[in-house]
Amino acid sequence: MATDPAARGLTDDAAVWRDLVLTHDMIVEGVHYLPDDRPQDVAWKLLAVNLSDLAAKGAKPEGVLMGYSMTGDAAWDAAFAEGLQEALSAFNVALLGGDTVRMPMGAPRTLGLTAIGTAPSGGAPERATMQVGDILWVSGMIGDAGLGLALRLGELQLDEALDVHAAYALPVPRLALGQALAGRVTAMMDISDGLLLDAWRMAEASGCGLTLALDNVPLSPTYIRARGDDVAGRLAAATAGDDYELLFSAAESAAPEIFALAAECGVPVARIGRADEGPGMRLFYKNKIVDAPEVLGFLHQ
Amino acid sequence: MATDPAARGLTDDAAVWRDLVLTHDMIVEGVHYLPDDRPQDVAWKLLAVNLSDLAAKGAKPEGVLMGYSMTGDAAWDAAFAEGLQEALSAFNVALLGGDTVRMPMGAPRTLGLTAIGTAPSGGAPERATMQVGDILWVSGMIGDAGLGLALRLGELQLDEALDVHAAYALPVPRLALGQALAGRVTAMMDISDGLLLDAWRMAEASGCGLTLALDNVPLSPTYIRARGDDVAGRLAAATAGDDYELLFSAAESAAPEIFALAAECGVPVARIGRADEGPGMRLFYKNKIVDAPEVLGFLHQ
Repeated sequence: MATDPAARGLTDDAAVWRDLVLTHDMIVEGVHYLPDDRPQDVAWKLLAVNLSDLAAKGAKPEGVLMGYSMTGDAAWDAAFAEGLQEALSAFNVALLGGDTVRMPMGAPRTLGLTAIGTAPSGGAPERATMQVGDILWVSGMIGDAGLGLALRLGELQLDEALDVHAAYALPVPRLALGQALAGRVTAMMDISDGLLLDAWRMAEASGCGLTLALDNVPLSPTYIRARGDDVAGRLAAATAGDDYELLFSAAESAAPEIFALAAECGVPVARIGRADEGPGMRLFYKNKIVDAPEVLGFLHQ
Repeated sequence: MATDPAARGLTDDAAVWRDLVLTHDMIVEGVHYLPDDRPQDVAWKLLAVNLSDLAAKGAKPEGVLMGYSMTGDAAWDAAFAEGLQEALSAFNVALLGGDTVRMPMGAPRTLGLTAIGTAPSGGAPERATMQVGDILWVSGMIGDAGLGLALRLGELQLDEALDVHAAYALPVPRLALGQALAGRVTAMMDISDGLLLDAWRMAEASGCGLTLALDNVPLSPTYIRARGDDVAGRLAAATAGDDYELLFSAAESAAPEIFALAAECGVPVARIGRADEGPGMRLFYKNKIVDAPEVLGFLHQ
């Protein structure tokens, strides 16, 4: 139905319309967050996931519209408002307007946010324009948010894992990095549903294949302590969701500049694969082919 | 929290940001529409209520972002998509993007829509700038949508009432009229929660009072047949919700031009009151003062 070119067939993270980038993400209690998550954290995450879509387009966030549903818990509403205010300040984004509705008794909170940003002057990167021969890159550490969720659910115990809890509860969209890279990449998207799933989507959309070295997927020390550094641990990291890191492709020759730009932004980046004629995605670990897992990522739907 | 000037304190229908007008309205099953309303009509209404906010700003609609929640009823989803496509075509608006989420079992559908329009070249009217001495105007017929809802709920029976059913189910935002009037009015808003409540809000926001003649509230023949033309029938019309007509103020001297512009748009307009020093709102019927009803309108929340 979305036939307007701005929608890019709805396969992209966000719409590019005139000089603006627009995105709308919803989160539902019990589906996208746990009913006993801190309301302040829910507000942060709702803003962060939308800003991550803008980051993938190299956009500068300007303002948001909030769709808020009330369920009759004034303390929760107040804590959410406090968290939203903090998050808006942290990312220097204006609340422009929105709507508040009251849910029927017992219905889950359903929150929507529209974020508006200005596109980079050279145009916003797309996810469907990776070229055969390009290097595939990823920012930050992969799998920490999924590990944070597992800890949150009590599926395992780990001392001093505050970093992965924050990766789950308070993700930081890679806005500066996205803006810095916008003119240098051939394609870019954010990872929300798992590195392998989103990498596969980028390759599919671009009409090429992908070779990915699991060895090179960047893991945090906390992650390695919890899940190990073997193929199973690496596959678990690469199929966990909620990372909100940037996945991007660029010509081999752009590598020095990409490392320099990322260093300026203070964000680690890693080369994890290469686009090829395809079709499909081939995974390697220590130079041996690895069967792709049946489930490439985490779908909230 | 919304301290950005674009938000106008969230008291306005929509945010004006740069040369754009932005609005986000949500509708919840069982709160804003009946669970057995036609899904095509729900889609129409969701778009129409947002476009009505743009109409009140004299804006030209450009595109929308859709926040859609699925509850596992594929036939409903398909019918909604069909209705949305029809409505988008009818108003010549592009679907730019959005998000789809799956609701937990049994949860009500919660739908959000963000509409983006371009502001009129002379700037978007506000609701808080009515001036003492201005005439208060309203477009269309008042109370038909509320009557349509009453018929829909079986609260009364009426033959040949298709016009009021359409007023309830398929409201038509006054886009052309809003654009035509934008430079001529001193203040403008759309009526969504009842004429009296929204008129009172406009006066309050403008820091003035209001005298309103119930005699002049425009009623349709169908409405008069169902509810009568007396003070009770007129108060019922003026406190029913969902009209989505335009309420606007203008200097006395602008009246001939306003009648001419409205005629060009094919929309009837009526003079229903006058702004005064206030405070508060005084209602008249046949030149006698009428006590204001305790409930001025219909709040969906």
